[in-house]
Amino acid sequence: MKNRQFVLASRPAGKIKESDLQLRTVDRPSAGPGEVLIHNEYFSLDPSMKGLMEGRTDYRAPAAIGDVMTCRTVGTVVESNNADYPAGAQVFGFLGMRDFSVTDGKSIPIYHYHDPVDPPAALGVLGGTGMTAYFGLTDVGRPVPGDVLVVSAAAGATGSVAGQIGKILGCRVIGIAGSAEKCRVLQEKLGFDAAINYKTEDVEAALQRLCPAGINIYFDNVGGSILNLCLARLALHARVVLCGGISHYNLETKPAGPDNYFNLVFRRANMQGFLLSDYLHQADEARTQLRAWLESGELVQLSTIINGFESLPEALVKLFDGFNTGKMMVRNEEL
Amino acid sequence: MKNRQFVLASRPAGKIKESDLQLRTVDRPSAGPGEVLIHNEYFSLDPSMKGLMEGRTDYRAPAAIGDVMTCRTVGTVVESNNADYPAGAQVFGFLGMRDFSVTDGKSIPIYHYHDPVDPPAALGVLGGTGMTAYFGLTDVGRPVPGDVLVVSAAAGATGSVAGQIGKILGCRVIGIAGSAEKCRVLQEKLGFDAAINYKTEDVEAALQRLCPAGINIYFDNVGGSILNLCLARLALHARVVLCGGISHYNLETKPAGPDNYFNLVFRRANMQGFLLSDYLHQADEARTQLRAWLESGELVQLSTIINGFESLPEALVKLFDGFNTGKMMVRNEEL
Repeated sequence: MKNRQFVLASRPAGKIKESDLQLRTVDRPSAGPGEVLIHNEYFSLDPSMKGLMEGRTDYRAPAAIGDVMTCRTVGTVVESNNADYPAGAQVFGFLGMRDFSVTDGKSIPIYHYHDPVDPPAALGVLGGTGMTAYFGLTDVGRPVPGDVLVVSAAAGATGSVAGQIGKILGCRVIGIAGSAEKCRVLQEKLGFDAAINYKTEDVEAALQRLCPAGINIYFDNVGGSILNLCLARLALHARVVLCGGISHYNLETKPAGPDNYFNLVFRRANMQGFLLSDYLHQADEARTQLRAWLESGELVQLSTIINGFESLPEALVKLFDGFNTGKMMVRNEEL
Repeated sequence: MKNRQFVLASRPAGKIKESDLQLRTVDRPSAGPGEVLIHNEYFSLDPSMKGLMEGRTDYRAPAAIGDVMTCRTVGTVVESNNADYPAGAQVFGFLGMRDFSVTDGKSIPIYHYHDPVDPPAALGVLGGTGMTAYFGLTDVGRPVPGDVLVVSAAAGATGSVAGQIGKILGCRVIGIAGSAEKCRVLQEKLGFDAAINYKTEDVEAALQRLCPAGINIYFDNVGGSILNLCLARLALHARVVLCGGISHYNLETKPAGPDNYFNLVFRRANMQGFLLSDYLHQADEARTQLRAWLESGELVQLSTIINGFESLPEALVKLFDGFNTGKMMVRNEEL
């Protein structure tokens, strides 16, 4: 009865390498008094992991070399000494890259799905990235029916949900993504009004054609030149939602800043950063709404699932290469 | 009975030259039916004039070559065929660089000071720059007592008022300015808590020393490297008020953007542009408040006054050289 886990072996410089994470096998733990043992079934890969691995983020504790790498998982309670989480309960939390985790529900906070959901949705639409999209769009973007919403990394975990919520709330939604196939999925499967393949199209010309009256909300997951081009096309009183900057996560040095930032003055526009951690007190509201949309079919869970616990490092590298459509996750083969 | 006026002779490329404005003398006009003739006594020089002269602004009509150059003035009605503005009335408006202007109060909107004020204050604290500072700080900056407010171009027309309002509203105020004398005025005359001379001090180190817990509000009049350094030192939920960018108004090409912009995410902070034109429906509220503070002595009018109508081009050039402390204006010698 073993417990595989991935520990941080080295801090990435530039691009993450698979060898930055190292497999270690230890004995499977047991649940102590008040604790539960959780079998992690699906593991979430998120761009924010890079900052943790680099030890650069100052808004939460960085990962330490030799520590089990933090990640969100969804799993099942297999041993319980805690009445709040009986055996068989479906739980979600930052349980880390390991087959089995132990918590009393406080040492590592967990969310208990009393009414179980499809595990990929628990990590995707209903998980951290779905809630990030929900709060970023509704609270920072503040959509009004008829708004033109542009989303970058639109086929990514957060972007794909942000764009769909924009549609539900009455926006005209334009996604920017990195392949013809991703653009097809955005339009055909998620109902986006238009999509731009930034690898083959002139993004500036496409934005001009698709947003002749300007962009009301730009939901930015990428930074770099796409942020800069969107700043140049803002409509009056536009909102720029700063969610991520994946275009520069692989760079060793800081890229150029957006030299069109002063258009925020001419357009009397707003550019605001946010983190999900500020909205945790409203998480139940978000989950309830997202789940209702998921069950009505208005919101589609889009996932790229790689099989096998030991694929975690490979999946993480692929995340930064834009391999995934929708939420990138690894399924523990030992289900 | 002549009317001197300055017309736009050429569009500046890079720095404004005196020869971009040309003196033309025409006959003094008369007030027609419903109109008034105004003698312009003080002329306001504003950084936003450069964009108008370049024809680059798209948020209002640019100046045309050969047109009388727009500027805010304060003057006295000397002939009146309009009961709203009797002879002797003190008026304020975009009456342009000319000795005498004619308006019916609508062709060029004017504001009538029923209770006359010191003309420099009419252009400064109570004029466009004072109201810009008022709305930018109160509505975009949203100060809370105890906030650390950093103001750049703090000895300029807008900055000097923004900083003083910050003090009135309970902020700790740090000004950034371009000379030891300006820094002295900020602290001794305007009550700023500290001042940084960006020409001789290491601004990054000074901000670190003066704002150990970060900046809650940054009121930006300059852009460039100072904006970037302030972005790096934001406190949680900080507000960056984008008011101007005088560091790049003299450049022919667009300068680098702020490469620390992503700190807006880590700090969950907000960067917002604004223009006074969006607040005109609240102008009376601002004027009433600003005048009350001026009369109580809480707010000081700081001016640099150059004498003589024909000094207008020289004064405009000097504005971009940082010559002025407080509001830059020209006094018509023919008073």
